[in-house]
Amino acid sequence: MEKITPHVVIIGGGFGGLMAARKLARSPVRITLIDRKNHHTFQPLLYQVATAGLSPGEIAAPLRWILRGCPNIQVLLAEVEDFDLSRRVVRLSGEEIPYDYLIVAAGASHAYFGHDEWEPFAPGLKTIEDALELRRRILLAYELAERRAANGEEELPLNFVVVGGGPTGVELAGTLAEIARRVLANEFRSIDPKRTRILLLEGGPRILPAYPEDLSQSAAGQLQRLGVEVHTSTLVTGIEPAEVRIGEARIPAAGILWAAGVAASPLGKKLGVPVDRAGRVLVNPDLSIAGHPEVFVIGDLAALKDEHGKLLPGVAPVAMQEGTATARNIQRDLQRKPRQNFHYVDKGSLATIGRAAAVADFGKFHVSGFIAWLSWLFIHIFFLIGFRNRLIVLIQWAWSYFTYERGARLITGDTRLPGWDDLESTHSERPKQRVG
Amino acid sequence: MEKITPHVVIIGGGFGGLMAARKLARSPVRITLIDRKNHHTFQPLLYQVATAGLSPGEIAAPLRWILRGCPNIQVLLAEVEDFDLSRRVVRLSGEEIPYDYLIVAAGASHAYFGHDEWEPFAPGLKTIEDALELRRRILLAYELAERRAANGEEELPLNFVVVGGGPTGVELAGTLAEIARRVLANEFRSIDPKRTRILLLEGGPRILPAYPEDLSQSAAGQLQRLGVEVHTSTLVTGIEPAEVRIGEARIPAAGILWAAGVAASPLGKKLGVPVDRAGRVLVNPDLSIAGHPEVFVIGDLAALKDEHGKLLPGVAPVAMQEGTATARNIQRDLQRKPRQNFHYVDKGSLATIGRAAAVADFGKFHVSGFIAWLSWLFIHIFFLIGFRNRLIVLIQWAWSYFTYERGARLITGDTRLPGWDDLESTHSERPKQRVG
Repeated sequence: MEKITPHVVIIGGGFGGLMAARKLARSPVRITLIDRKNHHTFQPLLYQVATAGLSPGEIAAPLRWILRGCPNIQVLLAEVEDFDLSRRVVRLSGEEIPYDYLIVAAGASHAYFGHDEWEPFAPGLKTIEDALELRRRILLAYELAERRAANGEEELPLNFVVVGGGPTGVELAGTLAEIARRVLANEFRSIDPKRTRILLLEGGPRILPAYPEDLSQSAAGQLQRLGVEVHTSTLVTGIEPAEVRIGEARIPAAGILWAAGVAASPLGKKLGVPVDRAGRVLVNPDLSIAGHPEVFVIGDLAALKDEHGKLLPGVAPVAMQEGTATARNIQRDLQRKPRQNFHYVDKGSLATIGRAAAVADFGKFHVSGFIAWLSWLFIHIFFLIGFRNRLIVLIQWAWSYFTYERGARLITGDTRLPGWDDLESTHSERPKQRVG
Repeated sequence: MEKITPHVVIIGGGFGGLMAARKLARSPVRITLIDRKNHHTFQPLLYQVATAGLSPGEIAAPLRWILRGCPNIQVLLAEVEDFDLSRRVVRLSGEEIPYDYLIVAAGASHAYFGHDEWEPFAPGLKTIEDALELRRRILLAYELAERRAANGEEELPLNFVVVGGGPTGVELAGTLAEIARRVLANEFRSIDPKRTRILLLEGGPRILPAYPEDLSQSAAGQLQRLGVEVHTSTLVTGIEPAEVRIGEARIPAAGILWAAGVAASPLGKKLGVPVDRAGRVLVNPDLSIAGHPEVFVIGDLAALKDEHGKLLPGVAPVAMQEGTATARNIQRDLQRKPRQNFHYVDKGSLATIGRAAAVADFGKFHVSGFIAWLSWLFIHIFFLIGFRNRLIVLIQWAWSYFTYERGARLITGDTRLPGWDDLESTHSERPKQRVG
């Protein structure tokens, strides 16, 4: 006997999973959305939390609040451990959830190219927790430098090294430069934050490799005007506490930020179908997987090529369109209509660099500088989930645009930094009297 | 040879220390303000962070940002380990800072009446980190309850127990009741948040013992109308994971919040002068300590009685007035004028209970309900440090007043709860199929 209401299980409340849930909210299905966080994170603005411009609550909203008006959707906070595709169940710790349709939208994390030992010294940026950790390290570096300098000790050079010249690396580097030169400029007595060096290291021949070449050049120029040192064709060969190695060269670093590799969620491999080198699942043109038309993979976890044979990028618009397409195909199944293949409609790409600095690729039109930045600003605020957040983010940004203030500069948690601890412990053996 | 510019060292950037620093900013002194956090925390609004109404960045601001316009003030992020009053130095880890004047404003923390083993199961509320931990536990309790119920398992009763009927306990209990009945009401599918029980336990015969008796009664009535069960003359005898014991009775608890005891900073004892039972330093009428006119203790760390022999309470107005008085006495020393004794000017006390519910004691006038709440609201927003924060807090509150939304409902960090773990591990041994 067939079930009357099909059960759709969605794994992941990012852009793809959330869009699929919303598009199915008025359909005759029951939906269970499972995420290991209680909130949707607006990832394109995570760098603003890492650089103290926005608070976590301004770029994230509880999934069950976003979906409160959808009585057919249940949100569960849980971590998925495995699947049994033959029995059509998802395994949580100690519990199984049966499904009729499964949408896996578990996303991606950062990867260290086989050097996981670098992670403690060069954290990446994928979650709210990551962003708070980066913020802690950046702000703490200035505090510890001030304390050393006040104590008459040799300064650790205030170098911040950003590894990876994609959109996240470019955003972080540009914003760090602004903070050093404008935000913190008058708040320290023993160090001069303007002497901060920001190094952006990119392994390939140009930054923003997914963008047209003229925009890469424009971005590099805009970064350099902000005071960022851009190094292309530069491969990192080692990362130690407070030090980056490039071949034989060693760069002392007060902070190291990882914005380079991406690895798909390990859940991809558990589906038992082929994955690519980054762990992305090879999907059919309708985003289902081989042998299981009832299982879809969308977003950063899916590997799908466009008509030119180019892999679709891991960005929010792709994930959202895939979520919509998958919801439509499930609706078409229920209506006994044939499925449609997914086609990505590229409306352009935007990368921000800093205050009034950005690049935009609208296909025929390439835009740089203030106009690109304004486009970026309004598109991002428009897409932020929840009206209250949008309003507050707009006020925060207007305020910080005119005053150069950043409102979320709190250090919470531990007040030690890797690479600075040795220093502290050496000290305690030889107390030193400060010159009164 | 005498130093030309006296060096004032202030320990603690709370209400007392910050006020002393600001009042000395235009005097011919050098000031070093030392705090183990980089930010001033507006403690009266911490309960709003714990209950997800405000983000940490909205009630805290970096000390060096607050003091950026004072070139004679240096802010250091450091933990004070000890003093050497005879040599007039403050000891940090591995470093000594000499002073001409020392103001110790290190505040207080929560105390468990000799039962420190209760702390992991019943966290208190003194810092931003504490508030985030309470928020995590409160929100997570609902998430785990929803997951259990969705899985068809027996519900752990959604009881929240607040221990201590002072202002913090009253605020927490009232706000929790509102969250359960209004904010979360429509967001869960398998549990009914309206069935949450909030228990406020007070050891003494009435809540808000520092307030006049009629206001205690009014507060208890307002709490009961919000749905809080108020239990006075009720002594907690044991706290276990997810359980509170009162004599032989055991109350299962999804969350336990500690708002009872207060202990002064351990730095008080290191000054070598008598302290009271709570560790507060007995000070002279000018707030200096016996034998050391150059050392002052102010704020929650100081024990000083008013003209009626009543100990001054540990509240922000006392600390701020003490900071001002100490700054003036240092200025009088420099001008070779005699010092003045401290006199607290009591402008009244306010305790908030929830939405449009509060009590206010203005001496002759006792006010309850909406008017008291409005007074509370405007006084607190007025005193919030920093204009941007004030504006944003006002918008957040206006928004949540009219919509019953709370904007900061993020769970960050670990997604386990003490007392719920056993459950999780029992599960994993016997997977259970949910009824599809």
